[in-house]
Amino acid sequence: MASILVINGPNLNMLGRREPEIYGHETLEDIISGLIDLADEYNIRLFDFQSNAEHEIVERIHKAMDDDTDYIIINPAAFTHTSVAIRDALATVDIPFIEVHLSNIHKRESFRHHSYFSDLAEGVIAGLGTKGYRLAFEAAAEKLEES
Amino acid sequence: MASILVINGPNLNMLGRREPEIYGHETLEDIISGLIDLADEYNIRLFDFQSNAEHEIVERIHKAMDDDTDYIIINPAAFTHTSVAIRDALATVDIPFIEVHLSNIHKRESFRHHSYFSDLAEGVIAGLGTKGYRLAFEAAAEKLEES
Amino acid sequence: MASILVINGPNLNMLGRREPEIYGHETLEDIISGLIDLADEYNIRLFDFQSNAEHEIVERIHKAMDDDTDYIIINPAAFTHTSVAIRDALATVDIPFIEVHLSNIHKRESFRHHSYFSDLAEGVIAGLGTKGYRLAFEAAAEKLEES
Amino acid sequence: MASILVINGPNLNMLGRREPEIYGHETLEDIISGLIDLADEYNIRLFDFQSNAEHEIVERIHKAMDDDTDYIIINPAAFTHTSVAIRDALATVDIPFIEVHLSNIHKRESFRHHSYFSDLAEGVIAGLGTKGYRLAFEAAAEKLEES
Amino acid sequence: MASILVINGPNLNMLGRREPEIYGHETLEDIISGLIDLADEYNIRLFDFQSNAEHEIVERIHKAMDDDTDYIIINPAAFTHTSVAIRDALATVDIPFIEVHLSNIHKRESFRHHSYFSDLAEGVIAGLGTKGYRLAFEAAAEKLEES
Amino acid sequence: MASILVINGPNLNMLGRREPEIYGHETLEDIISGLIDLADEYNIRLFDFQSNAEHEIVERIHKAMDDDTDYIIINPAAFTHTSVAIRDALATVDIPFIEVHLSNIHKRESFRHHSYFSDLAEGVIAGLGTKGYRLAFEAAAEKLEES
Amino acid sequence: MASILVINGPNLNMLGRREPEIYGHETLEDIISGLIDLADEYNIRLFDFQSNAEHEIVERIHKAMDDDTDYIIINPAAFTHTSVAIRDALATVDIPFIEVHLSNIHKRESFRHHSYFSDLAEGVIAGLGTKGYRLAFEAAAEKLEES
Amino acid sequence: MASILVINGPNLNMLGRREPEIYGHETLEDIISGLIDLADEYNIRLFDFQSNAEHEIVERIHKAMDDDTDYIIINPAAFTHTSVAIRDALATVDIPFIEVHLSNIHKRESFRHHSYFSDLAEGVIAGLGTKGYRLAFEAAAEKLEES
Amino acid sequence: MASILVINGPNLNMLGRREPEIYGHETLEDIISGLIDLADEYNIRLFDFQSNAEHEIVERIHKAMDDDTDYIIINPAAFTHTSVAIRDALATVDIPFIEVHLSNIHKRESFRHHSYFSDLAEGVIAGLGTKGYRLAFEAAAEKLEES
Amino acid sequence: MASILVINGPNLNMLGRREPEIYGHETLEDIISGLIDLADEYNIRLFDFQSNAEHEIVERIHKAMDDDTDYIIINPAAFTHTSVAIRDALATVDIPFIEVHLSNIHKRESFRHHSYFSDLAEGVIAGLGTKGYRLAFEAAAEKLEES
Amino acid sequence: MASILVINGPNLNMLGRREPEIYGHETLEDIISGLIDLADEYNIRLFDFQSNAEHEIVERIHKAMDDDTDYIIINPAAFTHTSVAIRDALATVDIPFIEVHLSNIHKRESFRHHSYFSDLAEGVIAGLGTKGYRLAFEAAAEKLEES
Amino acid sequence: MASILVINGPNLNMLGRREPEIYGHETLEDIISGLIDLADEYNIRLFDFQSNAEHEIVERIHKAMDDDTDYIIINPAAFTHTSVAIRDALATVDIPFIEVHLSNIHKRESFRHHSYFSDLAEGVIAGLGTKGYRLAFEAAAEKLEES
Repeated sequence: MASILVINGPNLNMLGRREPEIYGHETLEDIISGLIDLADEYNIRLFDFQSNAEHEIVERIHKAMDDDTDYIIINPAAFTHTSVAIRDALATVDIPFIEVHLSNIHKRESFRHHSYFSDLAEGVIAGLGTKGYRLAFEAAAEKLEES
Repeated sequence: MASILVINGPNLNMLGRREPEIYGHETLEDIISGLIDLADEYNIRLFDFQSNAEHEIVERIHKAMDDDTDYIIINPAAFTHTSVAIRDALATVDIPFIEVHLSNIHKRESFRHHSYFSDLAEGVIAGLGTKGYRLAFEAAAEKLEES
Repeated sequence: MASILVINGPNLNMLGRREPEIYGHETLEDIISGLIDLADEYNIRLFDFQSNAEHEIVERIHKAMDDDTDYIIINPAAFTHTSVAIRDALATVDIPFIEVHLSNIHKRESFRHHSYFSDLAEGVIAGLGTKGYRLAFEAAAEKLEES
Repeated sequence: MASILVINGPNLNMLGRREPEIYGHETLEDIISGLIDLADEYNIRLFDFQSNAEHEIVERIHKAMDDDTDYIIINPAAFTHTSVAIRDALATVDIPFIEVHLSNIHKRESFRHHSYFSDLAEGVIAGLGTKGYRLAFEAAAEKLEES
Repeated sequence: MASILVINGPNLNMLGRREPEIYGHETLEDIISGLIDLADEYNIRLFDFQSNAEHEIVERIHKAMDDDTDYIIINPAAFTHTSVAIRDALATVDIPFIEVHLSNIHKRESFRHHSYFSDLAEGVIAGLGTKGYRLAFEAAAEKLEES
Repeated sequence: MASILVINGPNLNMLGRREPEIYGHETLEDIISGLIDLADEYNIRLFDFQSNAEHEIVERIHKAMDDDTDYIIINPAAFTHTSVAIRDALATVDIPFIEVHLSNIHKRESFRHHSYFSDLAEGVIAGLGTKGYRLAFEAAAEKLEES
Repeated sequence: MASILVINGPNLNMLGRREPEIYGHETLEDIISGLIDLADEYNIRLFDFQSNAEHEIVERIHKAMDDDTDYIIINPAAFTHTSVAIRDALATVDIPFIEVHLSNIHKRESFRHHSYFSDLAEGVIAGLGTKGYRLAFEAAAEKLEES
Repeated sequence: MASILVINGPNLNMLGRREPEIYGHETLEDIISGLIDLADEYNIRLFDFQSNAEHEIVERIHKAMDDDTDYIIINPAAFTHTSVAIRDALATVDIPFIEVHLSNIHKRESFRHHSYFSDLAEGVIAGLGTKGYRLAFEAAAEKLEES
Repeated sequence: MASILVINGPNLNMLGRREPEIYGHETLEDIISGLIDLADEYNIRLFDFQSNAEHEIVERIHKAMDDDTDYIIINPAAFTHTSVAIRDALATVDIPFIEVHLSNIHKRESFRHHSYFSDLAEGVIAGLGTKGYRLAFEAAAEKLEES
Repeated sequence: MASILVINGPNLNMLGRREPEIYGHETLEDIISGLIDLADEYNIRLFDFQSNAEHEIVERIHKAMDDDTDYIIINPAAFTHTSVAIRDALATVDIPFIEVHLSNIHKRESFRHHSYFSDLAEGVIAGLGTKGYRLAFEAAAEKLEES
Repeated sequence: MASILVINGPNLNMLGRREPEIYGHETLEDIISGLIDLADEYNIRLFDFQSNAEHEIVERIHKAMDDDTDYIIINPAAFTHTSVAIRDALATVDIPFIEVHLSNIHKRESFRHHSYFSDLAEGVIAGLGTKGYRLAFEAAAEKLEES
Repeated sequence: MASILVINGPNLNMLGRREPEIYGHETLEDIISGLIDLADEYNIRLFDFQSNAEHEIVERIHKAMDDDTDYIIINPAAFTHTSVAIRDALATVDIPFIEVHLSNIHKRESFRHHSYFSDLAEGVIAGLGTKGYRLAFEAAAEKLEES
């Protein structure tokens, strides 16, 4: 049975708590719960981790080596633009990953146009809201089936 | 019945014709054929257009105003980095679109890191190979259902 | 009898077809028709050409050598920022020209602040809407009278 | 009866005094005199102001609020590239304006390619010599008629 | 009895004259009048100077050497970004100063992000509206008391 | 009764512990104690938080939504130049804030000239030492009174 | 029998038609005719193609896969600096090529100093006028002999 | 008896756990153990600290003021390029330090060419693998003997 | 009898008034007085002008056309880096000039490394203190003798 | 009898001595020997010079004025990117020259993309290995015949 | 018996001759003499070379191929930032090398932050004064023992 | 008796040998001979050195420490823009120097706008032809008298 780890970066725990007319009413719990259902369909084990702390994400990624994680889906949020440490952790464990962004980072401040993750990622999905996670899951699941 | 237009830019007609060990054996025809099946499931009409000529893509987009296209999926290929004309055409017809790239453009030459489309797109999917089109189709179809 | 050639670049064929509250109801046909009336007043022959294709504009400019065009008024639209080929065509035929922009390109995206035409042009008129063509025509006509 | 204010920046008082074979024999007085005739035709009141001093231009623009100026035509000359104070004055009085340049600033030193005025202006006319003022006047007059 | 000189740059004489819903109804006279009251409380002499002319500000700063000014509060307005002459005048008289901006210059055009004054200033206060002057006065007054 | 939260970033816990001849003898405890007295005068509740950890500051800001914080005064110290996560936290809770710096960051290394906070802040106060906190408090308190 | 394809980009069809004192009287036909003679000497088949249209050049390169072209000599002219599509076509067919420029592009406008082709080319010859084609042919022919 | 503190940044706890053919079989424990032996020879006390968390490193450096650390050897790993907070901590405690990198950062991605530490360090050693720590220790030990 | 005009820009009227241990006791009057003596030796008429106002310098340069000035020596001081208006005035009157700086501008802030005058000047003398004026005068006088 | 001077820069004396599988077995002596044969065919005198010392190349170029060199072929090797002195020497003697590079410098490190020679050269040939010298010789010889 | 070559670049022959309070009393001879003792301990042959001439260093490196040098320690001094020729020489002979700098180049002028050597070096040691050579020697010697 | 050393860089030995209508008929020997006469007047010993070799200039500067040179006048010519080694030599011997350029380097190629010498020089004189040396000598001589 294959395993996929879903990592969410800082401030994503606040999703759905504010300005639902803009970001929607969906919380991170809703997203994860939807992914768990999807994982069941694909017969894949889903690990889920959110943290506002860079080092906790680094260490969760290290741990992925021990629990035989096959694929990572990561929305690094603010860390997309600032964390070499998480980049290095992903390179160290050498597990393939897809980078997801809820919003279209190309429409936002110019410092959000650079990612420390995209050139290492297998794929990048941006701007499609919470749908992006589900698409990433499907892509990851199919890649695992193929390999 | 909603309509989705899939546009492919220059050189994509060559897909699958060379170096199958790298790019896979799947041709553009295979991709489109898969999308047509998917469109049938969703009960959506699929328009498909490939051209190596910038002006033909511009004019195909103009035509989308007349044939009531609801959503566009576009892989601008090389035009991603050079065509303001296609960007302007998309802005003119004001139809929502998703930008798809087969390869991970962030791993390639630095001139491929800039896109004239991403800041206008609803979403961007890159690096997931031919799966990217299917994911884009699903996202577009669901957005049409929601609206 | 002197001749002036008016060239319009990509997407300008769509003028007046969308969002009239923003861009006005005037179409490219209306603009050209107004310029023909003006040309009659000045006793000048007016050639008019619109294309979404870079090579068609290049070749129309080449042809201007054969039909004794004395002056060119060009709104390169998106090609303003991307076409060295049209720039080179204008340099090759060596016919004086004025560059016209409907909108004020200085208020828009930063990539629109650079033009491949302005340093070769006799003059540049931007931001004055469809009036810009008429002003350019007057300037060109007077220059032809003076020379 | 509408009013248009024509402002000329530093060194333009020297126009026509030197190198007539290059800049022509026309002086600033000639230009203004031509504009006054034109203003009569349009039944518009013309105010005219030239100064080599940035603060005098700033204060003349402030005064435009009191004398009900409807439109400004400004050739900021050297101040185009250096004066935030005049830019701010124009923004403060919030009177629409057209920016005029006698020469084609795109053919000159690279520091002349940036203007502190263009992104606030309704329009920009460059490179058409003294004709540029007349065209700007016509555009302004018609805009006043339309509004 | 200590002396503080308050200098205001170009266009600030227009404060409160336009768009009170945005900038408030407070004029420069109101601000100065408030500062004079505050100066009385602190038993400090207040000099006040506004000019739209760079050279008048330069010369007012020179004069501060003769009238024993102990501290300067300056809102250089547009000159913040363009005047090396005022910077040099402040360096010449070597009187400590605080730089004040009514608006948050970091939210505005990118050319407003650079100041020719900040690296010489003892402190910088921006974005707090007319309160900024009062805070600067308190800081200056306390520094004079301490020294 | 209104509430103001004062946040101090990394290394500020060391204030006053070293080189008192340069940074003064005042410790962070002294500063906070002074602000508490001031808060009493204004009848405002003061929350105080210092951390060397980015995620703890992020989470303290999140908590401000629950404890009805009305205003934030933040000295992000080193995080000024590196933390998109704290920036995003402030944007998420949407509580107005003033950014304070003890030293004049414009006199220091060039990487300190950019702040991830200033364009979101209501105001910025830099270079006025520990006085800066008091001034920020007064400004915040008055803004709360006004609203 | 080996085959070499010679491709010429936009405006090169005008060669020799204007300003013979500068560019010489030699037309593109003359150049090609000389190359055909040279090809006969080397017993090599010569294909020749000129177009002002980017897509026609893209498609001619695609066709080179079918007609067993062994080597390409290309003068992309204006497309040197703007066409990622032709670059991608050359990479797709993976036929070795030499890039030729009639003029010394290093003496011209700075935008001509960058080529989208040089890093993929086997060699680059610039500034030697029409001789450049002949030298490129010799180099290509010898490389074919060696391999 | 002098004390040297050895600090290792994020992901270095994984050393030797993966790809031993590239990074060698030596773990961080091995390195530290070798340094302890060396410290014994030099009769120096060795403190050792590794963390994936920026704030823990900041606080460990603060603590060095209390435990009379004489010298610091630091391999900031990913924090080399992103942590102003650790830089500031080192400047605050004002203990001399040497910066060590296992790999040659000049051969890697361009963002690794900038260090927030090198201009404060006494020395920098890069690219010599685990030997680098030993060399740094020798240099530090001798400097302590000299002083 | 030839004439040389010596122009001094802003703040130079303060020369010698402050920090004589750094800038020396020599005032601008002393410098001019020395130059007048030198002019007598060379039988040259010396005009002298200092102003803190850009427009006064512009107009003094205009006047040089009327009083038959043969050569200009200018120390633009702060205007070196900001005044296109004075640059344009010098270009308009087309009188040869030498640019003088008291201090070595290459040792100072980076914004002082660019001059709007040097590429138009016949020569530039920097860093030699008040001697620089005398050397410039000698060079100018000899050039006038030669021509 | 015309003369051509062939200059080779630093490290080219090592050609063929190492890694023949990459650079080929051909030594510089072989190349020169081939050029001498070619020169005999064209009845041209060939001077040949290699040095690892910039000043020796500078002085060899000076000497070319005395020995009536008609054309120079230069492979500046590493000096391509660093030697203004050799550039100036070539400009001083004003003898036309072609710049040759064995490898394709556009495929190599970015500092190799700039040449101090190309904008002065008549032509540039790069990437064609030792063939490049022969092509340059032919071009030079024909140019001498034409003139 | 292995051989190590120590190369010192320009001005290092002056070491210890000036300002001993800053650079110490140690001369280059002292350093080399210390390294010879160290080499004896390691039973390694030490070659030593200093030159102020780039070409002499280039040629000494070439000679290293003939005298079976196994490792190079190089302090390129000023050539660090300017010599592509020495870089190319090191690449040509393909002998591993360590780059040493006496001072911390990161604390000095910004042009010293770039090295033409670091990305080819096995390791870099900077800022540790003359100790740096000894550390480099130890590292080199151990690497030779390991291989 | 004081000593001044005059150093001339590469290609200056060719002065007066070519294009006398541009550079004049004066040779370097003429310049030096004029300076020797001037030195006699001032009772100063003049050393003179020209070389096309960077290392010879470096070593001549070293020697200046031994022959009690009091001042250096240097025209580094092409080395102005490329030689850190000569810059370091001047810093090592710590003898004050003036930098002279015959031509106005600000009118020439942009790479000539940067000098490795100006920020260390006491003064810079450019664009005044051979007069520049004499002015530099006078300035140096007077400085020696003053000290």
